[in-house]
Amino acid sequence: MTGKRNGICEIITIGDELLIGQVINTNASWMGEQLSLSGLQLKRVTSIGDNNQQILDALHDAVTRAEFVFITGGLGPTADDITKPALCEFFGTQLVYNEEAFQQVKALFQRRGMEVSDRNKAQAMLPENCHPVQNENGTAPGMWFEKDSAVIVSMPGVPFEMKAMFENQVIPKVMAMVNKGHILHKTIMTNGIGESSLADIIKDWEQALPINFKLAYLPQPGMVRLRLSGSGIDRNELEQTMNTLVTKLIPLISDYVFGYDNDTLEEIVGDLLKKSNKTIGTAESCTGGYLAHLITSISGSSAYFRGSVIAYANEIKTSALRVNESDIAKYGAVSKEVVEAMAIGLQKKFNVNYALATSGVAGPDGGTPEKPVGTIWIALATDKGVQSEKFQFGEHRGRNIRRSALSALNMLRIELLKVM
Amino acid sequence: MTGKRNGICEIITIGDELLIGQVINTNASWMGEQLSLSGLQLKRVTSIGDNNQQILDALHDAVTRAEFVFITGGLGPTADDITKPALCEFFGTQLVYNEEAFQQVKALFQRRGMEVSDRNKAQAMLPENCHPVQNENGTAPGMWFEKDSAVIVSMPGVPFEMKAMFENQVIPKVMAMVNKGHILHKTIMTNGIGESSLADIIKDWEQALPINFKLAYLPQPGMVRLRLSGSGIDRNELEQTMNTLVTKLIPLISDYVFGYDNDTLEEIVGDLLKKSNKTIGTAESCTGGYLAHLITSISGSSAYFRGSVIAYANEIKTSALRVNESDIAKYGAVSKEVVEAMAIGLQKKFNVNYALATSGVAGPDGGTPEKPVGTIWIALATDKGVQSEKFQFGEHRGRNIRRSALSALNMLRIELLKVM
Repeated sequence: MTGKRNGICEIITIGDELLIGQVINTNASWMGEQLSLSGLQLKRVTSIGDNNQQILDALHDAVTRAEFVFITGGLGPTADDITKPALCEFFGTQLVYNEEAFQQVKALFQRRGMEVSDRNKAQAMLPENCHPVQNENGTAPGMWFEKDSAVIVSMPGVPFEMKAMFENQVIPKVMAMVNKGHILHKTIMTNGIGESSLADIIKDWEQALPINFKLAYLPQPGMVRLRLSGSGIDRNELEQTMNTLVTKLIPLISDYVFGYDNDTLEEIVGDLLKKSNKTIGTAESCTGGYLAHLITSISGSSAYFRGSVIAYANEIKTSALRVNESDIAKYGAVSKEVVEAMAIGLQKKFNVNYALATSGVAGPDGGTPEKPVGTIWIALATDKGVQSEKFQFGEHRGRNIRRSALSALNMLRIELLKVM
Repeated sequence: MTGKRNGICEIITIGDELLIGQVINTNASWMGEQLSLSGLQLKRVTSIGDNNQQILDALHDAVTRAEFVFITGGLGPTADDITKPALCEFFGTQLVYNEEAFQQVKALFQRRGMEVSDRNKAQAMLPENCHPVQNENGTAPGMWFEKDSAVIVSMPGVPFEMKAMFENQVIPKVMAMVNKGHILHKTIMTNGIGESSLADIIKDWEQALPINFKLAYLPQPGMVRLRLSGSGIDRNELEQTMNTLVTKLIPLISDYVFGYDNDTLEEIVGDLLKKSNKTIGTAESCTGGYLAHLITSISGSSAYFRGSVIAYANEIKTSALRVNESDIAKYGAVSKEVVEAMAIGLQKKFNVNYALATSGVAGPDGGTPEKPVGTIWIALATDKGVQSEKFQFGEHRGRNIRRSALSALNMLRIELLKVM
């Protein structure tokens, strides 16, 4: 064992199914998150097929760059699994019977009340230079190798087998070998402003960031996430700097920030409604039920969500929501007057504290010169009256629907914060 | 331009957010699927951070192995996007103003009624040796490079920008440069049957497949896709064999097949409603608006969709849908009696030909021994009466909601086929 390491890691994921798009590589992103949370630095993920030469090439390259190389996949009992022979070739060694690994497989089978088959016995044949890593949830043991200054760990590709092994055994062993600083991340979730406008507003703050802090803009339809990452030796100092930076940032963009890290608008709004003991309903035209869907995607939403009227046809706006026919004729269905009447109508009908209403041209058809595709009106009825706002989104129907629903939730969030 | 290529590809995805697990690399799997469907061979995916040296190293390695290297990420207008300078360094060139790229950005902004900012103008600065690739959905143009025998294409990381660019412009240009046989795919979409039951029914058909044809089972919540792929030199022969195989398969599973290739249930049902000149509405409890959202996600759905009542609270089931309070008390909200009354109530109220209703325990809370999480009732009211069916799905809220909505659409599809 050489001296302390810095925690530079790479991942190699093996499997044809990852390359042809049949399986999404969630293992790599999960492992990346664990490494990052442990302050280790993942530098590269390489995804290759079930091919001996590709495995050898990828391994050879990875050990020249990284101190720790984590391999997943290709360890099952079936014929297409070829990682073990490739590892033998890479280390110039051979498969030998490993009693420790066999006892682990046997114990697993006994817990499940099953007999060990010859196929399973073959799984205890491991490269001579490895230490077996226990698989709590399956029959393929992991393998821990050390060669020169590099550590190579091979794990199964089945997510729940890999995850238990990585979390409970691999990471602790790695952490004991690493001489490392800390990495902290804070993600600020914003709605209602684009990436470039946000960048303009916070330009001075961003340029004054300490050298060990980095900012990333992560846009999605209807929101931009700002991820601030800092690295350093002293964790307390790092946390203090992070807090100071975030405290300076938030006032610049407070109108747009709705949460942090993995928060969603529908969760945040749900929490606020629960805390204030208020109820909500929606009257939807252009969002067509998507706003209600977001609200009810949260478990426990029945505590505050009572129901909705989706009024796609104008006759339903008049019959179910009591919108005046003459207003629709005069102003059009996509108008301040109609969307406010929808919100008020729903609020009364369903006896809710808050009612959100949407009416717009989601597209791709139905636009006019005065109201092009992407024109959306959103209204919020409260116990003090009704407010509304006009938005101009883009050309893509699905994104217009999502942006409309998120903007509606944000309007409600801002109102809920005022009264709390 | 050198001679014809064999279609060997690699992907490089750039972004710290991919390495720390904040974003799952769905771009790579989607591109992998597109390449595979086009008969191109994806050999490796490399995922690296926003780091100049890492980009240079990854590019350098990739061009020694692959004929086509596709890069995503790092092209936005903000300071953390560093792909362009890295590409300049790699090719030993510099950024120059590209009029073609600027006109594309300008046209996009004009369509959206917005002014081009200086920041956006900077996006038309491109490496001198590249051809811009149009971005239909955003401001960062793609870049097509050729160097020695390798083609390198840089695309934005925002999925819907990348996807349109890759599908409509990059793949066709690549295919024109590749010397290959033909690959045909046909995907059969099924609903209402699991993967293993499907495999049992079509076992004999599957075993008799010609050696140049492969079948893949692609399960998703609420549906299983069967993808049949054939490869060969003679395209006509391949098409004939494909037709013969599909013609033999369909009668075995006709109850479950709802469409082909990229068909969705909401499109198929929408087409059938349009053709039969009928209208639809929904009365939703457990699906909470998701069923209406699926229906209205289809452009032009206002021709047949009139509206919905989302009745989460029981009082709304009685007040807005005229369900008897005594039925809810006697049978519970999740029951045949209540879901049928919801469908009939909506049908009358909104004056529609068909009304779909859902009531169930989406979970994770609210289950009882008699009605565990995943118990869902679905009803369909037609002009001949009302029918209903009970389903038992799983424990995951989001999947239960999706499976319920798809099962409801399938119930309507089968009914519509009967009367046409």
